[in-house]
Amino acid sequence: MDAEEARQELGRLRASIDNLDAALVSLLAERFKCTEQVGRLKARAGMPPADPAREAVQIERLRVLSESSGLDPEFAEKILNLIIAEVIQNHHQFLDAEA
Amino acid sequence: MDAEEARQELGRLRASIDNLDAALVSLLAERFKCTEQVGRLKARAGMPPADPAREAVQIERLRVLSESSGLDPEFAEKILNLIIAEVIQNHHQFLDAEA
Repeated sequence: MDAEEARQELGRLRASIDNLDAALVSLLAERFKCTEQVGRLKARAGMPPADPAREAVQIERLRVLSESSGLDPEFAEKILNLIIAEVIQNHHQFLDAEA
Repeated sequence: MDAEEARQELGRLRASIDNLDAALVSLLAERFKCTEQVGRLKARAGMPPADPAREAVQIERLRVLSESSGLDPEFAEKILNLIIAEVIQNHHQFLDAEA
């Protein structure tokens, strides 16, 4: 493969990566819509923002899903932890708004 | 809404979140398949693992996409930075394997 072919192949792969990233953003936006509803519901019902038992189940489930789809489970866990931290921070805001 | 209704609504929302998480894992697995090909290509073609100009374009593009889909752009950038750090680490492994 010469330099021009390598450049073209890189462009092709990057176009796929950009498409996947757009899909990831859409899914994350939808996920935060769901967790926003969860946050409002928890605030109204007086449930605590964090739920360690639920989080443990989610992490274990994602590890299994990751392994079967060829994604590094350690990395999937890092991403989920980042998402959960953001969600819990948002939940606290709903609690504060409700208080 | 009484406690039982709140519990049912929470279960419904969590089922959607679980579905979205499964889709996120699949997309991430596919994205890492693409970046693995990029890593092998770069190692063969002698291109550097990181490409700050490309990363800047990706981050700006995702910020715009995030804003239009209602996702916090700061959060999208955090996620992308985590993904890029993992990708570059993987790229280095291909370089080492090629060396």
